[in-house]
Amino acid sequence: MPEPSVDLNADSILDPADWSAFCTEAHLALDVALNFMQERPGEAVWTELPDEVKNFTEPLPYEGQPLSTVVDEIKHRILPYTLGNTHSRFWGWVHGTGTASGIVSQMMVAAINANMGGRDHAPMYIEAQVIEWMRHLFALPPGSSGIICSGTSSATLMAINVARVHAAGVEVRSEGNSNTELVAYTSSESHVSVSKALEILGIGSAALRSVPTHPDFSMDCSVLVAMIAEDLASGLKPFLVVSTLGTVNTGAFDDIATIATVCQDLGIWHHVDGAFGALGVLSEKIKPRLAAISQADSIAFDFHKWMHVGYAAGCLLVRDGELHRQTFESSPAYLQSETQGVAAGSPWPSEYGIELSRGFTALGVWVQLKEMGVQRLGRAIYRNCLQAQWLGEAVELDHTLELMAPVSLNIVCFRYVADHLSVGALNSLNKRIVVELQVRGIAVPSATVLRGHSVIRVCITNHRTRRSDLEALHQAVGGIALELLKEMP
Amino acid sequence: MPEPSVDLNADSILDPADWSAFCTEAHLALDVALNFMQERPGEAVWTELPDEVKNFTEPLPYEGQPLSTVVDEIKHRILPYTLGNTHSRFWGWVHGTGTASGIVSQMMVAAINANMGGRDHAPMYIEAQVIEWMRHLFALPPGSSGIICSGTSSATLMAINVARVHAAGVEVRSEGNSNTELVAYTSSESHVSVSKALEILGIGSAALRSVPTHPDFSMDCSVLVAMIAEDLASGLKPFLVVSTLGTVNTGAFDDIATIATVCQDLGIWHHVDGAFGALGVLSEKIKPRLAAISQADSIAFDFHKWMHVGYAAGCLLVRDGELHRQTFESSPAYLQSETQGVAAGSPWPSEYGIELSRGFTALGVWVQLKEMGVQRLGRAIYRNCLQAQWLGEAVELDHTLELMAPVSLNIVCFRYVADHLSVGALNSLNKRIVVELQVRGIAVPSATVLRGHSVIRVCITNHRTRRSDLEALHQAVGGIALELLKEMP
Repeated sequence: MPEPSVDLNADSILDPADWSAFCTEAHLALDVALNFMQERPGEAVWTELPDEVKNFTEPLPYEGQPLSTVVDEIKHRILPYTLGNTHSRFWGWVHGTGTASGIVSQMMVAAINANMGGRDHAPMYIEAQVIEWMRHLFALPPGSSGIICSGTSSATLMAINVARVHAAGVEVRSEGNSNTELVAYTSSESHVSVSKALEILGIGSAALRSVPTHPDFSMDCSVLVAMIAEDLASGLKPFLVVSTLGTVNTGAFDDIATIATVCQDLGIWHHVDGAFGALGVLSEKIKPRLAAISQADSIAFDFHKWMHVGYAAGCLLVRDGELHRQTFESSPAYLQSETQGVAAGSPWPSEYGIELSRGFTALGVWVQLKEMGVQRLGRAIYRNCLQAQWLGEAVELDHTLELMAPVSLNIVCFRYVADHLSVGALNSLNKRIVVELQVRGIAVPSATVLRGHSVIRVCITNHRTRRSDLEALHQAVGGIALELLKEMP
Repeated sequence: MPEPSVDLNADSILDPADWSAFCTEAHLALDVALNFMQERPGEAVWTELPDEVKNFTEPLPYEGQPLSTVVDEIKHRILPYTLGNTHSRFWGWVHGTGTASGIVSQMMVAAINANMGGRDHAPMYIEAQVIEWMRHLFALPPGSSGIICSGTSSATLMAINVARVHAAGVEVRSEGNSNTELVAYTSSESHVSVSKALEILGIGSAALRSVPTHPDFSMDCSVLVAMIAEDLASGLKPFLVVSTLGTVNTGAFDDIATIATVCQDLGIWHHVDGAFGALGVLSEKIKPRLAAISQADSIAFDFHKWMHVGYAAGCLLVRDGELHRQTFESSPAYLQSETQGVAAGSPWPSEYGIELSRGFTALGVWVQLKEMGVQRLGRAIYRNCLQAQWLGEAVELDHTLELMAPVSLNIVCFRYVADHLSVGALNSLNKRIVVELQVRGIAVPSATVLRGHSVIRVCITNHRTRRSDLEALHQAVGGIALELLKEMP
């Protein structure tokens, strides 16, 4: 394929040929985005994808096409078939809703196109401000450090890497895990990202002890203490406890005050996985339950869940900022920072994490906090907890339903029950109810398993949910269950 | 602080009270973004940050404020003090320029707010399409897998994790690095993210052998072969060679055809770090130099550099898709995929990487490829290489300048020379020239060190650069050097 001759002195090959026409297109595209963002009552939460969307394949485009054609394809092939997490009746897994002003943040992020690995430019000070606000929010001491990242999975990976340097010394960076005696502890309800982090770090998931939980699904700290003592007696090296604030299944809070004391006494790193629960501190009503978080050695949480910043945005905070830097810093010749010019401004965020090039995720967080303010964000969080309590009570008053876990935060786990059904039949029935709710576009809860029972799981991290949405869910569960029971042998 | 009473059935607390007013604000904000995006000739590439930007601190906002006020702050406190990588005279490190249509992609990303960890929704098929295009572009066989990620640092981390499972078996996930005999190889010019990945993986950077380079800064493969033979003879286990397509200092290409043969003969994993150079395949003129990339076991590269997708967007491709999945997959109860409903659609991307929640980065890549097409993107890349050749020739014709490395791609490393200056004085002088170019807002090259010499490094990954911009740089270097020489003792 011959390439046209190239003029070394011409204007950009990739900029719009006609800026004014481009601006018109961009405003039209914005109307498409804004129109999609406004909730349309009565619309399905989720729609089964037609084959022409699922099986659409197209060859790698050699020729370009007008932006308006591409926007049109987004409008017809993507927007009608999204996940549904911007809808008021989406309660699956733990998803954020996003906000309308997220559109404004992200257009600014794209225009600025900052690389947040380091160097001296205004966006760096915006991220530093966000980290400082988070340090304040969690009452960590001055000297604590932080980094914005893609989410709690990578934040936890980074935190455990710092914990490893804490336990094994900075020479573990060059020497690797020669110490095969490291052991870590987390509850049986903790998130899979914890064991995955240990795998990636080369410590291995077998080094992670699973601590049993109380009936409320929080970690049994007396067992934790016994397990640590046993491992110490066996000559192993307990180096890490990962506690959870808001378990993924039921929203349980581990007793972080007790865990902090245990860890401090033994010099063990205490990492808090607060993926969604940690931002409960934004609400004055929930904050007291999180008081001991200020004693943590590290905290991981997401902005894209309960703070409704656009995906993907998470955060790691570390009490010992210097140790954090020692874990990740490196200074090759091509990245020498200077005292003057563009390469000034130190330390660089790339010295605190995995990535060198980084996006300007901080701007979306900064805009969200400034536009909404802590009070309004906290009120939306607290409202979700009250809604979960309301639904829990509705479940308890309904003899066809069974509440399967205490409603400790914003998650309601329940199942439909019928006396004549076996455990297996009940499990199938409840899994089917979840699928039917989704396929019919009524609501999106997710399914999980609690102590062997399949349950319907409603996780309300959704600022659009109204009580009427939960009433619609309640009613639909009963109706669908009766339909399915008729079909059953 | 008392919270107002909460109405469980009210509309969203975080949605705009007045959608129509919000839409007006959003369009005004778009004009701010679009206006910033258009290059204003004569404007400084970079401006020293005033203290009121650097030292600005504000308490965590409890009350919100109008979005228009926040946009105004972005306009006055951020936009005048950005890094400069959207400017035609920015050539520092390796930065992408971004494109105007990136603004449109990102507003759509924000409106859709997809979580790309998994599940069945249209955005998943967009990412799958992008990965399929990349597989085709690099001529990898069917069955290859891929994942979009934040950049080459994390792509390389993931790739080396797959290589470890390849060498040590999938049980390394649970057992950790019991095998302390793993050794890896990369050239002395490779990027710091390679050794950082080995540190994070717990293998340790001491396990990474630094292979010396030829005068053109590409890996000396005969030494590689000798080093591997020596390690094998010592009972060690060579498991990985990381080759580089476009070294960060000079843009050198390793001989990947030879490295592929060496690796295939010995069953060693061959990972290609093609952070910016790999997308040379978009140009028909550069593509032949990359032919052997289709034999790689894994390839890491960035969309945010030479393809000018907004930060942060990178990619990992793995030839053995099943091994890739085996390295990262896990299926806790709360993430069971189903054959029907929202939880259908498998495998999920979270089974191929570090993150569970993931952003819809794929959309920006998809829009860029569809709007621009491969030909136009390739032409912008090729033009940068011709511009680098032009500058290299201009340097060679100027007796006050010395070309410090062959111009093999898009990077020109040179220095100002004066006979009477010592090595140390020359190093200081050239570092000062770089800082002065930046501080005066004329141009942003970066500084690096090649075989002990400080050099001025011009990396042209910029679709806005014209030859006249390079002429301005050339002229300014000479002028600044004469000024600085006068000040020297």
